[in-house]
Amino acid sequence: MSITVDLNCDMGEAFGPWPMGDDEAMLDIVSSANIACGFHAGDPSIMFQTAETAKRKGVAIGAHPGFNDLQGFGRRVIRGDSPAEIERMIAYQIGAMQAVAALAGHHVTYVKVHGALNNMANEDEDLALAIARAVKGVDASLVNVCMPGLLMEKASHQVGVRVAREFFADRTYEENGTLSSRKKPGSVLHDADAAAERVLRALQDKAVTTLSGKRIPIEIDTICVHGDEASAVAMARTVRAKLEANGVSIAPFSRR
Amino acid sequence: MSITVDLNCDMGEAFGPWPMGDDEAMLDIVSSANIACGFHAGDPSIMFQTAETAKRKGVAIGAHPGFNDLQGFGRRVIRGDSPAEIERMIAYQIGAMQAVAALAGHHVTYVKVHGALNNMANEDEDLALAIARAVKGVDASLVNVCMPGLLMEKASHQVGVRVAREFFADRTYEENGTLSSRKKPGSVLHDADAAAERVLRALQDKAVTTLSGKRIPIEIDTICVHGDEASAVAMARTVRAKLEANGVSIAPFSRR
Amino acid sequence: MSITVDLNCDMGEAFGPWPMGDDEAMLDIVSSANIACGFHAGDPSIMFQTAETAKRKGVAIGAHPGFNDLQGFGRRVIRGDSPAEIERMIAYQIGAMQAVAALAGHHVTYVKVHGALNNMANEDEDLALAIARAVKGVDASLVNVCMPGLLMEKASHQVGVRVAREFFADRTYEENGTLSSRKKPGSVLHDADAAAERVLRALQDKAVTTLSGKRIPIEIDTICVHGDEASAVAMARTVRAKLEANGVSIAPFSRR
Amino acid sequence: MSITVDLNCDMGEAFGPWPMGDDEAMLDIVSSANIACGFHAGDPSIMFQTAETAKRKGVAIGAHPGFNDLQGFGRRVIRGDSPAEIERMIAYQIGAMQAVAALAGHHVTYVKVHGALNNMANEDEDLALAIARAVKGVDASLVNVCMPGLLMEKASHQVGVRVAREFFADRTYEENGTLSSRKKPGSVLHDADAAAERVLRALQDKAVTTLSGKRIPIEIDTICVHGDEASAVAMARTVRAKLEANGVSIAPFSRR
Repeated sequence: MSITVDLNCDMGEAFGPWPMGDDEAMLDIVSSANIACGFHAGDPSIMFQTAETAKRKGVAIGAHPGFNDLQGFGRRVIRGDSPAEIERMIAYQIGAMQAVAALAGHHVTYVKVHGALNNMANEDEDLALAIARAVKGVDASLVNVCMPGLLMEKASHQVGVRVAREFFADRTYEENGTLSSRKKPGSVLHDADAAAERVLRALQDKAVTTLSGKRIPIEIDTICVHGDEASAVAMARTVRAKLEANGVSIAPFSRR
Repeated sequence: MSITVDLNCDMGEAFGPWPMGDDEAMLDIVSSANIACGFHAGDPSIMFQTAETAKRKGVAIGAHPGFNDLQGFGRRVIRGDSPAEIERMIAYQIGAMQAVAALAGHHVTYVKVHGALNNMANEDEDLALAIARAVKGVDASLVNVCMPGLLMEKASHQVGVRVAREFFADRTYEENGTLSSRKKPGSVLHDADAAAERVLRALQDKAVTTLSGKRIPIEIDTICVHGDEASAVAMARTVRAKLEANGVSIAPFSRR
Repeated sequence: MSITVDLNCDMGEAFGPWPMGDDEAMLDIVSSANIACGFHAGDPSIMFQTAETAKRKGVAIGAHPGFNDLQGFGRRVIRGDSPAEIERMIAYQIGAMQAVAALAGHHVTYVKVHGALNNMANEDEDLALAIARAVKGVDASLVNVCMPGLLMEKASHQVGVRVAREFFADRTYEENGTLSSRKKPGSVLHDADAAAERVLRALQDKAVTTLSGKRIPIEIDTICVHGDEASAVAMARTVRAKLEANGVSIAPFSRR
Repeated sequence: MSITVDLNCDMGEAFGPWPMGDDEAMLDIVSSANIACGFHAGDPSIMFQTAETAKRKGVAIGAHPGFNDLQGFGRRVIRGDSPAEIERMIAYQIGAMQAVAALAGHHVTYVKVHGALNNMANEDEDLALAIARAVKGVDASLVNVCMPGLLMEKASHQVGVRVAREFFADRTYEENGTLSSRKKPGSVLHDADAAAERVLRALQDKAVTTLSGKRIPIEIDTICVHGDEASAVAMARTVRAKLEANGVSIAPFSRR
């Protein structure tokens, strides 16, 4: 039985004169690029260049909307917007990304919500539903990338949005399927080989061992190889090589 | 011979907690609403509300993109972006407006560039072409609202974008078809009846008398009743009444 | 025994082309103007004009710093900044206000933190201490306007910052000295005469009746007559007239 | 006869999560740090860290205000603000920098206007006067860093602001004392030794050879070793070494 999986990475996170990350290198490794939409990072020209390079390298693209928070890179929790306001803010960013992608000859096939807003949506059903409605309202064919078993996935099913279930290559899990806090020892995998091995086993076994040692089932459509570490490219390359060496094919979930 | 013309107005120019204008009243008068896209005014929720109200009242909507300049309301000239950067910035805003409109059950049928950027495009062919490419690149069915005879109209024709030719109800013209500077005495019409009468004659005669007194030919698809005056609603109402009383039908150009 | 008290109001809350409130009228009523510093509202020119008008009318001015959140008017809770980051952000705004006030021939005598950040500081000692350190670090003579008995007042004492204790004219209190939630029936006083009467009694009795009916002691140096209501000016005028009719003098706390 | 000169460099140009430049290394070389004030780059925490490091290393600091243009890094020309508006905007940034410097135990001794606004001021007397008034209005002891012989220097003299005359280590001059356009071949010196030699000779001769080959007199108080090149640190180090090897002392102009 052959396995095919997607590799995704956050990209286009430069802003104005400030570069970030090595998108050119990453786009040789991943099959899906989550492109920041100008709210927490990115700007129209960076979005364009990222989409154009992705197109050239055969990489699928997704809108990666977040809070309108350049200062905090979308990682600050911002409370006070109604779900309806969040819905419109997400739609705005998806539409902006679609239009810029069109200029670059590419098209957006999925959405992955960024940072604090993604975390908040998995703790607030109304917010998760608002995001799912935004995705569907803009384009009913868009896929929403979600952590399996959490509120955003459930809201997507409820609203009728197709989901891709995401696994994080370099993070450990709690028994309820959430990521372990970065503050917990061992919660971030820094060793590329160990991370690659864990990804392979999770794909083959459809299960992962939590930080507490328990085995929990997990379905995986896409693997996030993004890391805030300088070593992100190296880890991504190791994960991809490991998967391919073991017969796993890498391809965008959004084309299957 | 019956005449049909469109009435357009800039709208959705509130921002966050700050209101601006009386959109509710204006949407009972005009047939097309140019909605600010969050760069010089507006935000996703204001865009949504404006689109939703326009839909309810049967008013067509257009994206009204401008410089990313809330402080200056898009009226400051900003130099330093390449035409390619402007192209992506315009596309971004059009796409954002399309997506938010979709949430509101409405759809964008045209684009009208705002303020300083519009003026600059009529003085810079490369900029005009970039904007025309942005409009076409996002959606080839979109109409670009242009002042007749100026660079943006020419660039739109060259790129293959359909145009709607705009006449300003409360501004006088120079012999080359540009608007007279606001600094010239008499360049802004404050009398609603005089403005309405002039609009009617321009439509019937396909010509307008310039500030200098010369008659120049002019083709009109849409009349801009926007004004920065508090009396904007009253003037718009007077113009509409005058036109209808003289057998002119008011309808969105974008549906004909 | 004669009583003197300050009346303060949030001002300078316009932004760019968007007006807000009737500062000109309010500056004829209050003795202290809390001027927004460009982060949640205001911009350098609005700050200047507000300071200049306050100077002309003999009104003291304070810096009114908040979150860098124009979209949410500083009312959204933003979590993720360290206390040290907040300290620098507050100092930045105070310094900006001081410099613009200097251009206007006026000077800043106090600080009052705005909106969500003020609320958060009364629930987080580290944040309250950071704000107090910012006030003192910029200018040790500045007064910090605080709700009596809450964390920000305590932090100010601890850091060695002089405080002015504030009473809200149109809001009811809980037994612990916090404001009643706006969601509770009766928590916002809309009747100007009732509000004025309550302010007078609180000043005379040094006590206020909470929403629950209990009497709690309260020391008052300044009364906030700001309201989000359109009737703000009328209520402020009524409060001032009531106080003066009963022998209370109105003067900036910062000059006593 | 011994010569003492200042070396200045633009710093604190990171923003939020985005780093820029190697300030730590540069602060070991220069005697004055021009710190971005959050409008074209920088934020309160970056301003603080830069000021704190400068203090520790004995480096003088100046406010480096610019247009409110993160997207364009203050390099875009923005037209439409009145001189009075620019005056307040500059004062705002100087005051913000003073306050954050105070937290860091340092103090601002000078101002150097950034990018497009600096260029514009040297072409518009009203703008130059407005900036000089802002500097003086905030703190009459502040020094304004100017290119010798141009409008900003003249305006500073007229307003009564002390100036430091700046020489650019890596740029050639026109006969009128302006910098040669970067588009002209040879206008940017990439060779550190050649740049250092030219700086030394300009200091010793009080004259520089223009791009056209003419000798023009030049008075120098401070040398800008900032460069947009990755090699900025190396060039700065070479210039300093060359000067010191030839008996030139490096010290902040603002302490003499």
